[in-house]
Amino acid sequence: MTDAKSIRPLRASAVSEWGHSADVVVAGYGIAGVCAAIESARAGADVLILERSGGWGGAAAMAGGFIYLGGGTPLQRALGFEDSPENMEKFLLAALGPGVDAAKIADYCRNSVEHYNWLVSCGVPFREAFWGEPGWEPPHDEGLMYSGGENAAPFNTLATPAPRGHVPQYADKRIGQRSGGYMLMKPLAETAEKLGVRVEYDTRIRRLIVDDDDRVVGVVAAHFGKEVAIRAERGVVLATGSFAYAAQMIEGYAPRLIGRPAAAIEEHDGIGIRVAQALGADLAHMDATEVAFFGDPQLLVRGILVNGRGQRYIPEDTYPGRIGQATLIQQENQAYLVIDEASYEAALKTVTATPFFRQQPTWVAESVAELEADMGLPEGALQSTVETYSRHAAEGKDPLLGKKPEWVRPIGTPLAAFDMRNFTAGFTLGGLRTDLDSRVLHVSGEPIAGLYAAGRCTSGLCAGGYVSGASLGDGSFYGRRAGVAAAKN
Amino acid sequence: MTDAKSIRPLRASAVSEWGHSADVVVAGYGIAGVCAAIESARAGADVLILERSGGWGGAAAMAGGFIYLGGGTPLQRALGFEDSPENMEKFLLAALGPGVDAAKIADYCRNSVEHYNWLVSCGVPFREAFWGEPGWEPPHDEGLMYSGGENAAPFNTLATPAPRGHVPQYADKRIGQRSGGYMLMKPLAETAEKLGVRVEYDTRIRRLIVDDDDRVVGVVAAHFGKEVAIRAERGVVLATGSFAYAAQMIEGYAPRLIGRPAAAIEEHDGIGIRVAQALGADLAHMDATEVAFFGDPQLLVRGILVNGRGQRYIPEDTYPGRIGQATLIQQENQAYLVIDEASYEAALKTVTATPFFRQQPTWVAESVAELEADMGLPEGALQSTVETYSRHAAEGKDPLLGKKPEWVRPIGTPLAAFDMRNFTAGFTLGGLRTDLDSRVLHVSGEPIAGLYAAGRCTSGLCAGGYVSGASLGDGSFYGRRAGVAAAKN
Repeated sequence: MTDAKSIRPLRASAVSEWGHSADVVVAGYGIAGVCAAIESARAGADVLILERSGGWGGAAAMAGGFIYLGGGTPLQRALGFEDSPENMEKFLLAALGPGVDAAKIADYCRNSVEHYNWLVSCGVPFREAFWGEPGWEPPHDEGLMYSGGENAAPFNTLATPAPRGHVPQYADKRIGQRSGGYMLMKPLAETAEKLGVRVEYDTRIRRLIVDDDDRVVGVVAAHFGKEVAIRAERGVVLATGSFAYAAQMIEGYAPRLIGRPAAAIEEHDGIGIRVAQALGADLAHMDATEVAFFGDPQLLVRGILVNGRGQRYIPEDTYPGRIGQATLIQQENQAYLVIDEASYEAALKTVTATPFFRQQPTWVAESVAELEADMGLPEGALQSTVETYSRHAAEGKDPLLGKKPEWVRPIGTPLAAFDMRNFTAGFTLGGLRTDLDSRVLHVSGEPIAGLYAAGRCTSGLCAGGYVSGASLGDGSFYGRRAGVAAAKN
Repeated sequence: MTDAKSIRPLRASAVSEWGHSADVVVAGYGIAGVCAAIESARAGADVLILERSGGWGGAAAMAGGFIYLGGGTPLQRALGFEDSPENMEKFLLAALGPGVDAAKIADYCRNSVEHYNWLVSCGVPFREAFWGEPGWEPPHDEGLMYSGGENAAPFNTLATPAPRGHVPQYADKRIGQRSGGYMLMKPLAETAEKLGVRVEYDTRIRRLIVDDDDRVVGVVAAHFGKEVAIRAERGVVLATGSFAYAAQMIEGYAPRLIGRPAAAIEEHDGIGIRVAQALGADLAHMDATEVAFFGDPQLLVRGILVNGRGQRYIPEDTYPGRIGQATLIQQENQAYLVIDEASYEAALKTVTATPFFRQQPTWVAESVAELEADMGLPEGALQSTVETYSRHAAEGKDPLLGKKPEWVRPIGTPLAAFDMRNFTAGFTLGGLRTDLDSRVLHVSGEPIAGLYAAGRCTSGLCAGGYVSGASLGDGSFYGRRAGVAAAKN
């Protein structure tokens, strides 16, 4: 956190010396920042990126690397999946609400194939391989996977299921330990470099500089504690990430994440949001959160997930992030996985990208009644849940929640339960309200002149829901828009 | 909604003519505004209230009239209830979270008895009578009632239950149709009048006026479309209510309320929040919502409430607003009340303040299996719920949710179900972040000079939870604080 008092905008007339100058100044060298820089440079602007850490990458480089793309990308088509912008839009409207920015979703879906091609043209590699097993990520370098519950209830009845989680390939064996996110950022950073984009590392923004008409004309940044004024002739792009590590903002806007932040890097302190708020910028969906759930989907799909009352509440074969959101927001973070020995053994034999999520059972028992008592659940609660589930499962059905027949089977004995209470962590999805050109909107509804933003310091595609790849997706997509708009300004 | 472009603050140097002037200008003549005006006037300030409608009252005058007070008020003591500030604080911290402003709650609880006495000294009448039946409000002019689930699970095990819903008495038989909220506002408005507080009706604020140091020194308001600049020598108090009727704000911050606003008056357009945001004011808990549930608690307590999966999810004898929140936020607005004929008949013989909530059953059946099928629930879902509930109820227990023994009895036949899906509506609880002196805080953390706020345009006591009386409670309490602080400025 920067010193609180420094957040108010500074008048350009009060600047005695400009330390740097560029046409477009981009704050943050993660996914949104690099895409903004590339497009600005291509549009002829002289671009300077300010990055508070010592290298490029941001949270993106540490992420699994999903980019949510669809509508019929070459990768989808090559792997035999049909999709259309309309189909993608139908799914996202249902999965990311309520309260989504419908114009943004429509825009994003209509231009998703073009965006895929743009990424490829920048050198981002996708391997033509589909991973169809339950999981958070592909275990190897497969390029495509379901990452949002598209093929699970209730969405598989609302839109034609299509996988849209695109993952850059770990092309270089020497960096095989790197994530897909790193393999996304690396070619983009190299592209920016080739275009002559300049970077100042170890430089964090503190406040915006405005002229007498409240137009943004620069930023004040700190380089090892020393403040420097940086001139932006055409515009400033904020791309500083979420507020997952800003304790007061979490308490005030997204208190369910108190004590459980999970952005990949602790730099996510909300500074981009706050310096713009100080200029009257509007916000949206500040309570929205991505939620990770520390369970291996290969285990989850083979058991039943129950809440603190022993009741099932979500199809276990859906996107695990959806399970995390439902658990944290709707079930007070109370969850238990109940699974029989045979299914547990079967799960252990499967391939998974998250073997560290395969913990030992908390309780094992010879009967449901015994398990229920050991777990401290009210007598009969779990028994009636298992009895009803197993009765339908014997017919290959799950009328309660619509889990797919392939994962539905009666729960036998012996059986076990995993204590998955408080198995969640997450990052924030809310932030600055922006338009389709990534212009930051004032609370009056008008754009703030000279100010652009993208990535997780903005409210993007998501409101109440999330899909893996939405953050790298809207961050890269609207990062590009910010770069174009700022260069044209 | 005012014209968007007019929201940005205006420089005082650009004002050619001041139409009115006062020491303290209060925007909004509801509960927060009237209390601010009284305290400002008593502190020696010349006070002008601007009210957009044609009379005093705001949402408060239309409300049931609960003021949440405790810690051992004279009314509580006279009726034999023990309470302490610490006990009240313990309950509110548990019931209003997560993410509550703990300093505000402690402050409010410690000064609650004083605030009760202040209201009485202003002429607000409370009748020494307790209403102990389930319900939203007392059916007559009883002065005290449980209004937050204090005596229901899980709170009755966390703090000593004490009723804290204080309701002003309908003293005047000629206005017997008026609500408790009217009887709260009337003596307060008369008190303000006696103190010489001036009022301009049909006058709505549009933007704030600031001097060259960004100190708030007035407002621009519109009187039948004509704009007038109004000078505030010491300060401006924003008391303009919630944003329940501001469509874009609802969509962006509290989308579960889309299409279901329920502030008492449609004037709640968020204007006070937006004019302050334009100055860099910080916000908090913009997603927080009070939620009404259109069911008669006398029916609810005698049946079981199940969600779209046929599962119970909340003790039916708790504060019905809590049922509304759980239904809207955690159960996707899916709720059914299942009740047997004997209990239904018993409920119809009781006294209630909300007879209009006693609708006809949607389905009647001779057995649970038949009812379940008629309701379209998955086979076995409701049957197992009823079976487990009734088995425990035969022993007078509810281990699943802790409903009190007096309301627990096995469900017999014939029985019925009420379709209570989408039976919710609500208003917003989030807004400007203020300190204990009701100073509006800038996003930098510092107070904005000359600007104060109270009531539902601020984030008050509530975050994730609500109790009836919290809004008139913190609105009146922090309205007073705003009045004192503005007068001293």
